Amino acid sequence: MTAARAQFRVIYGDTDAMGFAYYGNYLKWFEIGRSEWFRNTGTTYRDLEKNGLFLPVVEAHCSYLKPAFYDDLLTIETAFKFAGPARLRFDYVIFRNDEILTKGYTLHVCLNSERKLQRPPAFLRELLESCETR
Amino acid sequence: MTAARAQFRVIYGDTDAMGFAYYGNYLKWFEIGRSEWFRNTGTTYRDLEKNGLFLPVVEAHCSYLKPAFYDDLLTIETAFKFAGPARLRFDYVIFRNDEILTKGYTLHVCLNSERKLQRPPAFLRELLESCETR
Amino acid sequence: MTAARAQFRVIYGDTDAMGFAYYGNYLKWFEIGRSEWFRNTGTTYRDLEKNGLFLPVVEAHCSYLKPAFYDDLLTIETAFKFAGPARLRFDYVIFRNDEILTKGYTLHVCLNSERKLQRPPAFLRELLESCETR
Amino acid sequence: MTAARAQFRVIYGDTDAMGFAYYGNYLKWFEIGRSEWFRNTGTTYRDLEKNGLFLPVVEAHCSYLKPAFYDDLLTIETAFKFAGPARLRFDYVIFRNDEILTKGYTLHVCLNSERKLQRPPAFLRELLESCETR
Repeated sequence: MTAARAQFRVIYGDTDAMGFAYYGNYLKWFEIGRSEWFRNTGTTYRDLEKNGLFLPVVEAHCSYLKPAFYDDLLTIETAFKFAGPARLRFDYVIFRNDEILTKGYTLHVCLNSERKLQRPPAFLRELLESCETR
Repeated sequence: MTAARAQFRVIYGDTDAMGFAYYGNYLKWFEIGRSEWFRNTGTTYRDLEKNGLFLPVVEAHCSYLKPAFYDDLLTIETAFKFAGPARLRFDYVIFRNDEILTKGYTLHVCLNSERKLQRPPAFLRELLESCETR
Repeated sequence: MTAARAQFRVIYGDTDAMGFAYYGNYLKWFEIGRSEWFRNTGTTYRDLEKNGLFLPVVEAHCSYLKPAFYDDLLTIETAFKFAGPARLRFDYVIFRNDEILTKGYTLHVCLNSERKLQRPPAFLRELLESCETR
Repeated sequence: MTAARAQFRVIYGDTDAMGFAYYGNYLKWFEIGRSEWFRNTGTTYRDLEKNGLFLPVVEAHCSYLKPAFYDDLLTIETAFKFAGPARLRFDYVIFRNDEILTKGYTLHVCLNSERKLQRPPAFLRELLESCETR
């Protein structure tokens, strides 16, 4: 699968007194990208949770190349690959038109409904492998 | 009981491109006030939830009299009264030094652990009544 | 003009430990509605600011009728009317499909580029009057 | 200078439906740490901005070792060092009592009042060097 694309608009509440989008909000936008990536695979993260699987973030990174401003219409591209048998990695690029503003990634582990670490069960591993970006 | 007081500082992430604290953040600050009000009664909202009681907001109101700015040290005063046998009302005033910036209130109902409406149980009603601001 | 409609999806970052969308986030969603209302009139709030006009919120109100949950696709309907010659009022209704979850309003004043109160200038008053919901 | 310490409490609005503090909020907490670090040096970031200096984040990283929960009282320790003549690095550790929950860093550049890149001016470089953690 190629990267999933999602769009969103920067609101006033996302900006700060410098006139830029606040740096902490990009992690929320990464979540928008991730969520749409799952939707593109035919499942949703909501459904994974209903099946007792949780994928909390264990590491997040963001490089801010250019600022985003109020009312900008931004695009986020999200790609997935395994970073180990029990470690999921999502890579994100945020664009304004063709201009790259931000790059980042998140690493996730898999928890069961008792919030204990586990390997992704077979159905999830197969789904993720079939959608890996190589 | 008189009103409970709590202090907090406006961070960059709370501001917006107008240079003011964003209007939506005041509801988070009301929560800080409410949380400290509970702590002053000798219990905490966290403990109420551990006992299977939830107090979601059903109405919120805020009047923005003067803006708050980055790095302002603000004080929130929170007072409680019943707005009916099963309806809790918290009133908030936010100050910068002696200057009133914002006034507001929230109304809450009481849910049990199945998220069903119920009257506040006796122990909670007594605690709240003894702390009402008249 | 009839009410403007906009859609958005509840992300994980919008939810809280009760499993509901956090009450403070609705004011951000009201801003999404307001922003799209302006876009529908043929201008944008961004352009108003470029022309030295600011419309800060002086009062906000929200009634939470039913909770919103993670991954819900919500619709916000926004309508405008004058609440006085220098006071703008936006009314909001948030739906999940046909179910009303939340109702609220915001009141705004008009500031010039020195952040001083002023009446809306003629071009803005005419635009707003032509789009008032009666 | 040794690391600066600041305390804050996790509010409901910081949590998510998993019952954990949402991963994006840690970047706001890093800002609290950074802001208190500056206050400890005898200046404030607010004063730097009044002098026409801005220190936007160009890179942020966070490792989430253990979750934080609602109402936790957390401590953030912030240390500073230069990462190049025009690149500032802050390192953060977030604790609940003696338990390390999160580690991270941010990298910053220096902009002047026209938002153009510049080297930190002499007064700032001297202040920062005298407070570097080695």
